[in-house]
Amino acid sequence: MSPRALKVFSLCPSPLDAILVKNGTTPFLDDNFFYLTDLVTGVFEGCLAIVYPDGRVEAVVSELEAESGRRSPATVSVYRSKKEFTEIMARLLGSVEKIGVNAEGLTVHDQKALAVILPKAGFVDVSAAFAAARLVKDPGELERIRRACAITDRVAEALSEIIVEGMTENDLAAEIDYCLLKEGADRPAFGTISSCGADTAEPHYGHGDVPLKRRDLVLCDFGAQFRRYASDLTRTWVLGPGSRQQREMYETVLQAQEQAIAAIQPGVQASSVDWAARDCIERSAFKGRFIHSTGHSLGLAVHDGERFSAEASFALKENMVFTVEPGVYLPGVGGVRIEDDIRVTTRGCELLTHAGKAFVEI
Amino acid sequence: MSPRALKVFSLCPSPLDAILVKNGTTPFLDDNFFYLTDLVTGVFEGCLAIVYPDGRVEAVVSELEAESGRRSPATVSVYRSKKEFTEIMARLLGSVEKIGVNAEGLTVHDQKALAVILPKAGFVDVSAAFAAARLVKDPGELERIRRACAITDRVAEALSEIIVEGMTENDLAAEIDYCLLKEGADRPAFGTISSCGADTAEPHYGHGDVPLKRRDLVLCDFGAQFRRYASDLTRTWVLGPGSRQQREMYETVLQAQEQAIAAIQPGVQASSVDWAARDCIERSAFKGRFIHSTGHSLGLAVHDGERFSAEASFALKENMVFTVEPGVYLPGVGGVRIEDDIRVTTRGCELLTHAGKAFVEI
Repeated sequence: MSPRALKVFSLCPSPLDAILVKNGTTPFLDDNFFYLTDLVTGVFEGCLAIVYPDGRVEAVVSELEAESGRRSPATVSVYRSKKEFTEIMARLLGSVEKIGVNAEGLTVHDQKALAVILPKAGFVDVSAAFAAARLVKDPGELERIRRACAITDRVAEALSEIIVEGMTENDLAAEIDYCLLKEGADRPAFGTISSCGADTAEPHYGHGDVPLKRRDLVLCDFGAQFRRYASDLTRTWVLGPGSRQQREMYETVLQAQEQAIAAIQPGVQASSVDWAARDCIERSAFKGRFIHSTGHSLGLAVHDGERFSAEASFALKENMVFTVEPGVYLPGVGGVRIEDDIRVTTRGCELLTHAGKAFVEI
Repeated sequence: MSPRALKVFSLCPSPLDAILVKNGTTPFLDDNFFYLTDLVTGVFEGCLAIVYPDGRVEAVVSELEAESGRRSPATVSVYRSKKEFTEIMARLLGSVEKIGVNAEGLTVHDQKALAVILPKAGFVDVSAAFAAARLVKDPGELERIRRACAITDRVAEALSEIIVEGMTENDLAAEIDYCLLKEGADRPAFGTISSCGADTAEPHYGHGDVPLKRRDLVLCDFGAQFRRYASDLTRTWVLGPGSRQQREMYETVLQAQEQAIAAIQPGVQASSVDWAARDCIERSAFKGRFIHSTGHSLGLAVHDGERFSAEASFALKENMVFTVEPGVYLPGVGGVRIEDDIRVTTRGCELLTHAGKAFVEI
């Protein structure tokens, strides 16, 4: 009996006979498959998870994944051919009429193929139930996120020794990814951002063949993936004596982050956390220069369903996990972002990342 | 006018008014979006590519991707809201009746949303046309694959110096990924495999906290992603001195690979390339121990559409790019795989990877 399966069913607006999550081929793999099966290793192209209202979980996996599949608490059926796949599906879902699917992760091709195999079935989109269920983390999820955060902290603390004048943004990305793996990450949680100078003013920039120069802002945004769960952290430094403007940007962003963190507690609207950070920047010399939302939920996905944004219309609950990451960006000049990960607690929030964030001139 | 767009249209079984490729949210991003727009940097969640029978390409991108989007040869429309998105779609596709889509990459949710915005449109699955078009690479694609292969070669050549007794599989993966980035990869093309001892007998194993021991087979399977195109290479060493069995496994696999490579030329059935490698192993002491297909096409995706397998039913054409990677796996003992990338030429094939593959005892 899977508490996660029961939770997803409880969030569906109408009763269902079963819920099915099917992976396509890479990259069309659905995090909800891993949410339900708790499978940590393996790829699972074309594989399925099926859950029933009583909390039973069935995994249907290809022969290639049979070994990895056995590590799931789910009951595992292995298919060696299309015929066997069809037989297993008929056995598990043949008499079922109303099946929930994640329409945001199921391809048109796969739904069509399932409709042929299961002619009695009607498919209902339950993507909202999955998103809502995953927003509040359970103890197993929190444990992995904590491990991912601890790895990221150790890398962040090492970075002020690694960053030197003349190395390129690409070199810096290689060092960060190397440190993440050496510190125990299964892989980087996303494409590492390591930017310097004017590049730091583009929030979505990656890295390039650009050398770090004296007086540059240097921004590193990276995360660890640990047993499929992500951390996400940003720190910004100045390579050698910082200007008054750089320090002012930094202090403004840090203050905005502190105000956002102070605003977090159960029952509070997500939009008011965004407002706390935004208001601080809007009242500063950097009005209009904070051009993205204040944070996003974090879990199996790096962007795990919801945001701290002006438009967000949900209230915080205990054990939601978010990034808090205000920034200030001056096009052509540079940007500062400071990002930590937090867990909503019964009375406020707990910082999950702890790397130092005083203004540092390397 | 995009030759790639014209090529996809020419492979569609019936006439269409337009073809549309829409990305979902990460990881549901469709390689065909990048195939049509030739966009190298950026994420492009929720963005669209639209092509017309005359070869015109339109990209519809969110504000966040406006900067990256401008690097495409496509005409770019930027939307700042759902309303603007709907307006752009009506302008570009409002009068269109028959629209091709990639049903293997489009989510059920997105097709439903598109049907609401484009009430006149009928959607036709053209995934097979995309797959067929991408199987034969154009000069721009080949150039990037060559660069990716050259990076991988340099890393492979460095590995016999990096592999030492006592380091763990995880350490080795960190070194490989670091070298890939330092040698110019944008990122590893896939999750690096670095296995030793009995772990080498599992073809899909990744890496673990397992130290490399004397007399272990050490298998490394990795690739570079360069401007979105992949390379994929495997080498196997013995952490010396090798046993007679290890040497025999190695020589058998190498011979199987040579026979497969010798079989490649335009017009030849893909299945007979598989047979060439398989026959060699089936006649050896390792009969029954080659448990996967002989190779796969390579491009924007690591598994780019087709395979050298017994079931494959297509003939080779010039400028198809494949891996050739026979292997022998003895459960509980160890495995050997040797993998190179090739391009089908007018008369045979060209090796794209050149790292040495003599039997090496480190």
